[in-house]
Amino acid sequence: MKYRRSGRLVDMTNYFLSHPHQQIPLSYFSELYRSAKSSISEDISIIKEVFETKNIGTIETTAGASGGVTFIPAVNRRESEQLIKELCDRLANPDRLLPGGYLYMMDIIGDPILTQALGRIFASKFRKAKVDAVMTMATKGIPIAYAVAGHLNVPVSIVRHEHRITEGSIVSINYVSGSKKRIQTMSLARRSLLPNSNVLIIDDFMKAGGTIRGMMDLVQEFQSTIAGIGVLTEAIHEEEKLVEDYVSLTKLSEMDMRTKWIKVEPGNIFNKAFSFEDN
Amino acid sequence: MKYRRSGRLVDMTNYFLSHPHQQIPLSYFSELYRSAKSSISEDISIIKEVFETKNIGTIETTAGASGGVTFIPAVNRRESEQLIKELCDRLANPDRLLPGGYLYMMDIIGDPILTQALGRIFASKFRKAKVDAVMTMATKGIPIAYAVAGHLNVPVSIVRHEHRITEGSIVSINYVSGSKKRIQTMSLARRSLLPNSNVLIIDDFMKAGGTIRGMMDLVQEFQSTIAGIGVLTEAIHEEEKLVEDYVSLTKLSEMDMRTKWIKVEPGNIFNKAFSFEDN
Repeated sequence: MKYRRSGRLVDMTNYFLSHPHQQIPLSYFSELYRSAKSSISEDISIIKEVFETKNIGTIETTAGASGGVTFIPAVNRRESEQLIKELCDRLANPDRLLPGGYLYMMDIIGDPILTQALGRIFASKFRKAKVDAVMTMATKGIPIAYAVAGHLNVPVSIVRHEHRITEGSIVSINYVSGSKKRIQTMSLARRSLLPNSNVLIIDDFMKAGGTIRGMMDLVQEFQSTIAGIGVLTEAIHEEEKLVEDYVSLTKLSEMDMRTKWIKVEPGNIFNKAFSFEDN
Repeated sequence: MKYRRSGRLVDMTNYFLSHPHQQIPLSYFSELYRSAKSSISEDISIIKEVFETKNIGTIETTAGASGGVTFIPAVNRRESEQLIKELCDRLANPDRLLPGGYLYMMDIIGDPILTQALGRIFASKFRKAKVDAVMTMATKGIPIAYAVAGHLNVPVSIVRHEHRITEGSIVSINYVSGSKKRIQTMSLARRSLLPNSNVLIIDDFMKAGGTIRGMMDLVQEFQSTIAGIGVLTEAIHEEEKLVEDYVSLTKLSEMDMRTKWIKVEPGNIFNKAFSFEDN
């Protein structure tokens, strides 16, 4: 089809947004629109400028015969901080307190637009970590894991507590749940993670870190490496956590079951040590 | 910020795509860009034309003081048929056959870009069904359910086999799994579905339909109604299915465990009776 610049800008913007972290040769667009590569380059610099001004992301250009352009999603630090602050306020509602020191979070995790936005913060944070796959634990880690993976354009491996017959051969490990000190089992289908993958672990909630520690061991069983760890909420844990390098979006820092009072703060993602923009 | 048309087109395209099924007043854009409403209207007609030509969706205009513009995602029938055909070819690989007549599908379900595309087909199909919430069964229905819900801008309710302590009071029902004739339990957190919701049920696999039948009963327990039912794959079932009105994307129509042969066809979504475009 033949488009004027205005039409091309709309169509290319949609294409970039739906193909993150994917290199596209310039010739793809010039053939699609029957336009000169020079016009396409101009289109792309307009899109790039808006994407960068509005912190939608950037468009990286790779030169050479195998070159092309790649959309890398990003987030605006100030907007992300605002989003996380609002999330903390929502989480601090005492109605969420459940027996055992848990928080009701399904309304947060059940909102697909919000989970996309939260996933995008992790995807932006780990955009240079050369992630090959995202790993998460069923059930509640799945929505955010998919949002992260979608923005990074990598597959998801879902670890489960049970053994299910519908997935062929599985790899199981035992692990000690950190807060309850109970031995549990987690399994992953042999086919669902390629060996030598660089794996980003994403979960909804971390107390002592036992489940995440288990997933780290499972990654090793697949001869793979850890690209990073991200949790939506980290909880109070008196003893030393079993995991050191993790990124959290929110932190449940104080809780009084008797007076039904909880305090939720932004997690460590905005700490200076993590240099949000430059990682 | 002040933008020229080209910049506005890029930014507005991004805004529409990330706010599906959400009415936006024209004044939002005219204030954001400090532009006349007439210029914004022209921008929107350019975007609308490209969206409709490329089957990205449409932009509906509501007149009046409370009026505005709403992006309704859609899909191209031909491209969707092509995507489903390719999916059938992938599913027909005999290596997927697992004991018990199950198919290994985690590579499909584990691909966030593919699940987004499949979810978009359901969202387009049910775009006029006034869906308030999407319901699915943990674990494997979740990725597609979120993709559907994201495109419809509604929350997700995750039904589970187990009782988990982290969700407060739950509603449980017993149901008979259709193929194994075994009594099982499914639960949904009381807080995770509002009464009087119109619920779209989405699942990955349907054999006799017992699980979906159970979810339909659960919807009733929440004084809610069924907006529709969508499954990624329906399997062979000799007896009558327990569910009548459902939309399937693919159909496992023949299977021979001995010779390791399976046949997978497109589901009923493209049948004339469903009038894909006009529902």
